Amino acid sequence: MNYLTKKAQQLTPYVAGIQPREPGWIKLNTNENPYPPSPKVAEVLAATDPVALRLYPDGSSGKLCTAIASRYNVPEDKVFCGNGSDEVLALAYQAFFSGKTDILTPDISYGFYPIWAQMYDAGSKIIPLEDDCSVDISKYKNGNGVIIANPNAPTGLALTLSEVEQLAKNNPGGVVLIDEAYIDFSSEESAVPLTQKYENLLVVQTFSKSYSLAGLRVGFAVGSKILIDGLQRVKDAFNSYPLGLLEQRAAAAAICDVEYWDNTRRGVIAIRDKTILELRGMGYDVLDSHTNFIFMKQSDGQAGKLYEYLLENKILARYWNKPRLSEYLRVSVGTNVEMEAFIKCVKQF
Amino acid sequence: MNYLTKKAQQLTPYVAGIQPREPGWIKLNTNENPYPPSPKVAEVLAATDPVALRLYPDGSSGKLCTAIASRYNVPEDKVFCGNGSDEVLALAYQAFFSGKTDILTPDISYGFYPIWAQMYDAGSKIIPLEDDCSVDISKYKNGNGVIIANPNAPTGLALTLSEVEQLAKNNPGGVVLIDEAYIDFSSEESAVPLTQKYENLLVVQTFSKSYSLAGLRVGFAVGSKILIDGLQRVKDAFNSYPLGLLEQRAAAAAICDVEYWDNTRRGVIAIRDKTILELRGMGYDVLDSHTNFIFMKQSDGQAGKLYEYLLENKILARYWNKPRLSEYLRVSVGTNVEMEAFIKCVKQF
Repeated sequence: MNYLTKKAQQLTPYVAGIQPREPGWIKLNTNENPYPPSPKVAEVLAATDPVALRLYPDGSSGKLCTAIASRYNVPEDKVFCGNGSDEVLALAYQAFFSGKTDILTPDISYGFYPIWAQMYDAGSKIIPLEDDCSVDISKYKNGNGVIIANPNAPTGLALTLSEVEQLAKNNPGGVVLIDEAYIDFSSEESAVPLTQKYENLLVVQTFSKSYSLAGLRVGFAVGSKILIDGLQRVKDAFNSYPLGLLEQRAAAAAICDVEYWDNTRRGVIAIRDKTILELRGMGYDVLDSHTNFIFMKQSDGQAGKLYEYLLENKILARYWNKPRLSEYLRVSVGTNVEMEAFIKCVKQF
Repeated sequence: MNYLTKKAQQLTPYVAGIQPREPGWIKLNTNENPYPPSPKVAEVLAATDPVALRLYPDGSSGKLCTAIASRYNVPEDKVFCGNGSDEVLALAYQAFFSGKTDILTPDISYGFYPIWAQMYDAGSKIIPLEDDCSVDISKYKNGNGVIIANPNAPTGLALTLSEVEQLAKNNPGGVVLIDEAYIDFSSEESAVPLTQKYENLLVVQTFSKSYSLAGLRVGFAVGSKILIDGLQRVKDAFNSYPLGLLEQRAAAAAICDVEYWDNTRRGVIAIRDKTILELRGMGYDVLDSHTNFIFMKQSDGQAGKLYEYLLENKILARYWNKPRLSEYLRVSVGTNVEMEAFIKCVKQF
């Protein structure tokens, strides 16, 4: 007896990078931040009496929305928080893309997009990246929606702010969703301020990368009131209380500690740029990175072999044996020591 | 410009009970537990280094599943954890009910069921409760699915274990989903052991009620491997990491502290039974309760007025101005002091 719905039978679940639990690994496969989270997170968690957990949390994460709004200088009713940016993006598919066609999206981007499209019946119009892995925004016009990661993953390349603005202008009939998971590591600017000018622009960010809180599970969206209300409607038909008390408090503490955030993201950028220089010095073709990972090319089927070699040496990277991706290896930016071990291993390969 | 999908425009979001943030309220409206969570929760949270939050959590909540499996004496691959039982139930709708007809469910039960049915295109066959608010299981046969809260909300009445077994037997072609949010306050037994006998039986529980962790957001399901795998498929097409590190650890600590759980649930039951006796002594018609709330009848439109009177006295109860429910008031079981204040207020009404 198969009890599953047809949809559940047919869908292809997302496969996240391996999360080894035993020690000894150099983990450069899921773009975690090598720095610890802000010490303010530890402080606020220590100051929270677990007795407060007996009550339901604020279902709309009010104080956290206020902290995010204050940080980005937008009204707090234009902020929506969710259980990781994955949940926020999945709710956005349901609120804005389900049942529509011509949702414009690159062929190579975050691997969850085609899965949400399948899960929520969104008809994607796939637009191949250019040969240099860049996004040509002139190809994204009059869609019923657009979803682009900026900076893009796993390429690490970024659009300029004016290119994002063009996307919003050129697709007035649909929501232009910009997934800025990695924006804080980019030399390009966040499109958050543009959301206050373009009603159809929704920007999603996460606490998992630049705030070093992947284990907390908090993401957020900033957009016009109409888009935020849409997300709220869908969320309230799914789960009243997606974020617990601890997550709301810890994330709010992290986003208020701007100095720590700025220092650590600069640290990641410095380690990244140093590693890229070294790899290029060794003759590797490495894309410019606006993220906390490096996307390096390996011709003649060597990328998969390098992945395996690193694995034997207990260094986890990310490799996709798929068209257009199989020549590349994606390597997260770890600590200086971890990146030195990685470089050493690449030299030995 | 309306950017929302038709579904998002049409759906009726769930409205949870009010969560006042200012002090001074006696909060008897969302069935929270008056006891604090187990002290083991505070211990494990204090012992967790926030530095660990920089890494993604275990996406399948392995250790928490193990703790739950051990507690209920089932294999750990027959346990699924989610972001509150609401998320688990919503995923179950998507995995087992979407696109089907004849999903059998009572007319009066948890208010989220019809919303998920709408959200995920599940065709419900609504079966009215009997006049005494009980569920007549002989009316639940050959459905493509069944969803029942047991004990039921907001009535507080419970089916016996053999009645639940009959449901599983009488609906072999669909998943029989038993929502046991309140089972730990019942004199009837949990159907968890039956899930190992009936492939189509899925039991969902929560940490929000008897574990006093509504602010944590953890729920779980126990069922056959085929049903748990189905939930996992749908979850992995939605959100890879629904539970953060803190939630996984805190919930595992709570479920292992069986003695505390047993003492506090017995405490709630004692306060509940004392309150029911007092209300009956005052002439009120109160249903038997297998939950941590009381469902009391008020004829001649008095229930709404009592709700308002309690509100004026800063006591929050839950009232639905809907057919069949408008004669009742639902009152959560608080502390002895809170229930005395409630009784005093009812006497003054």
